[in-house]
Amino acid sequence: MKYYIGIDLGGTNVRTLLVDENGKSYSEVRDITERENGPDYVCSKIIRQIEGLDYSVCGGLSNVTGIGIGVPGPVDTVNGVMIMATNLPGFENYPICEKLSNRFNLPVFIDNDANVAGLAEALLGAGKGKSICYYVTVSTGIGGALIVNGQLVSGGRGHAGEIGNIIVKNNGYKHGALNPGAVEAEASGTAITRKGKEILGEDKVAHAGDVFRLADEGDVKAQGLADEVISEIAILLANIAHTVDPHCFILGGGVMKSKRYFYDQLVEQFNSKIHVGMRGYIPILETELEDCGAIGAAMLPMSRLR
Amino acid sequence: MKYYIGIDLGGTNVRTLLVDENGKSYSEVRDITERENGPDYVCSKIIRQIEGLDYSVCGGLSNVTGIGIGVPGPVDTVNGVMIMATNLPGFENYPICEKLSNRFNLPVFIDNDANVAGLAEALLGAGKGKSICYYVTVSTGIGGALIVNGQLVSGGRGHAGEIGNIIVKNNGYKHGALNPGAVEAEASGTAITRKGKEILGEDKVAHAGDVFRLADEGDVKAQGLADEVISEIAILLANIAHTVDPHCFILGGGVMKSKRYFYDQLVEQFNSKIHVGMRGYIPILETELEDCGAIGAAMLPMSRLR
Repeated sequence: MKYYIGIDLGGTNVRTLLVDENGKSYSEVRDITERENGPDYVCSKIIRQIEGLDYSVCGGLSNVTGIGIGVPGPVDTVNGVMIMATNLPGFENYPICEKLSNRFNLPVFIDNDANVAGLAEALLGAGKGKSICYYVTVSTGIGGALIVNGQLVSGGRGHAGEIGNIIVKNNGYKHGALNPGAVEAEASGTAITRKGKEILGEDKVAHAGDVFRLADEGDVKAQGLADEVISEIAILLANIAHTVDPHCFILGGGVMKSKRYFYDQLVEQFNSKIHVGMRGYIPILETELEDCGAIGAAMLPMSRLR
Repeated sequence: MKYYIGIDLGGTNVRTLLVDENGKSYSEVRDITERENGPDYVCSKIIRQIEGLDYSVCGGLSNVTGIGIGVPGPVDTVNGVMIMATNLPGFENYPICEKLSNRFNLPVFIDNDANVAGLAEALLGAGKGKSICYYVTVSTGIGGALIVNGQLVSGGRGHAGEIGNIIVKNNGYKHGALNPGAVEAEASGTAITRKGKEILGEDKVAHAGDVFRLADEGDVKAQGLADEVISEIAILLANIAHTVDPHCFILGGGVMKSKRYFYDQLVEQFNSKIHVGMRGYIPILETELEDCGAIGAAMLPMSRLR
């Protein structure tokens, strides 16, 4: 049995786990990140967390095979650094992998949190046993991950899975640096809430779930909006399907809380937008793992060292 | 040195090559397909072609490592059969791989012609040395192929690369079984010709190249049409880039004959539609190989047997 260390480095909390190759976790240390103190401070905290794990199951830190880190934002996986770090100021190009590798004499890998969550789902969750998985999370934003034969395809500059920027509506809504009509600007939780407030009223919509609930209750305007959003997510999935033809989609994120309102319609819409020969063959599965950030990070060295 | 047999099985001609692992070809047999005589007839012809190759470079057929077949249409790569065979009637589900494998006691692989051409370009042509290549051909239709670490990612049912069906224009033109506004219906050679005839006149446009030539000569309507088509191809490439973040695109097909009119604008449009962190990092390369169908087919066993 091989053992890995997974680190879920977020803007608020940082968490370190000792995990075996089946994803079973044995020991955990968790703290607040205190990102305001800068990357050297946070890096020292991570080193203490690693040293603080209980290694009795594997007979010591020297028997660990590798370390993985999941971070919020795009990563240069070749050089092992973050490219943008909106929620971890100072971490752009900070050599976190090099520092941990030098300290512990272990291979260290880093990737963004959506990729890491997708890897965990593909290896241990809904995608277990399937060769090509595409993980899609529809939450505050929209992100994703491509996993082929148990290995994360992060892309040339770590941007594989940055599917939130895929255009689903020509000349659509412009949100931040995204394309006008990008799916994240049209069909993320944030976008559904925005559209819902505009069309149904500020007081009626606090979050995306309200739109689907009102549609289910018979509100015609809400139904129109739900249809539009479901169609846009279906276009996203169809685009991805034609590009990589995955054995399954794994769909997660906060919007899935409303899945009983939209799931059947999404499957139907998706199948109507793909080639005849693909229809019915690509299941849209729900995520199975909870809190898979640190476990997924631990799977990074397993995926990369094969 | 390893040797492979590649078969380019088209609706008109069938061609068999003996190739080494560097893509160098040593012997070739070519005939008309005579598809009207059915798959058993064509299969016998292929067997004779294989037996007719000159194996002196490798000391005999028994020293060949594997056989690959490229065919027009989607393939079930798991079961080694064609799913649809518009140009090879009767080849749907015909066990061509099994028949050749039994006859020659060699592993036999099959994939569609765009995938096979993309594999050749990725391994031996424009993508040589690049980990993730996405091949895109804009010709009569639009097709593509994803190659990761030298291996073709054909997808769960062989539909990876069926990018012609990706929607680039909401409620756009409906062509055959494709999505309304699919890129093949909007920006393939066929589509550019159709739009050109409509907007510029039947007599002025015989093929897509005329539209780009007229735009270059200052025709304002042709310029508007060229802008539209370039933007649509850029949306296609941006969609793919966000999905897999390739180290390069390899662009081929007949429309590339007009590349001097549109290439710079395509690169600019593409970069304007992708995430800031990706801009300038994904080259759009031109195909380098000529007539790569049979060579690409020979690369199939090399790709799959690793």
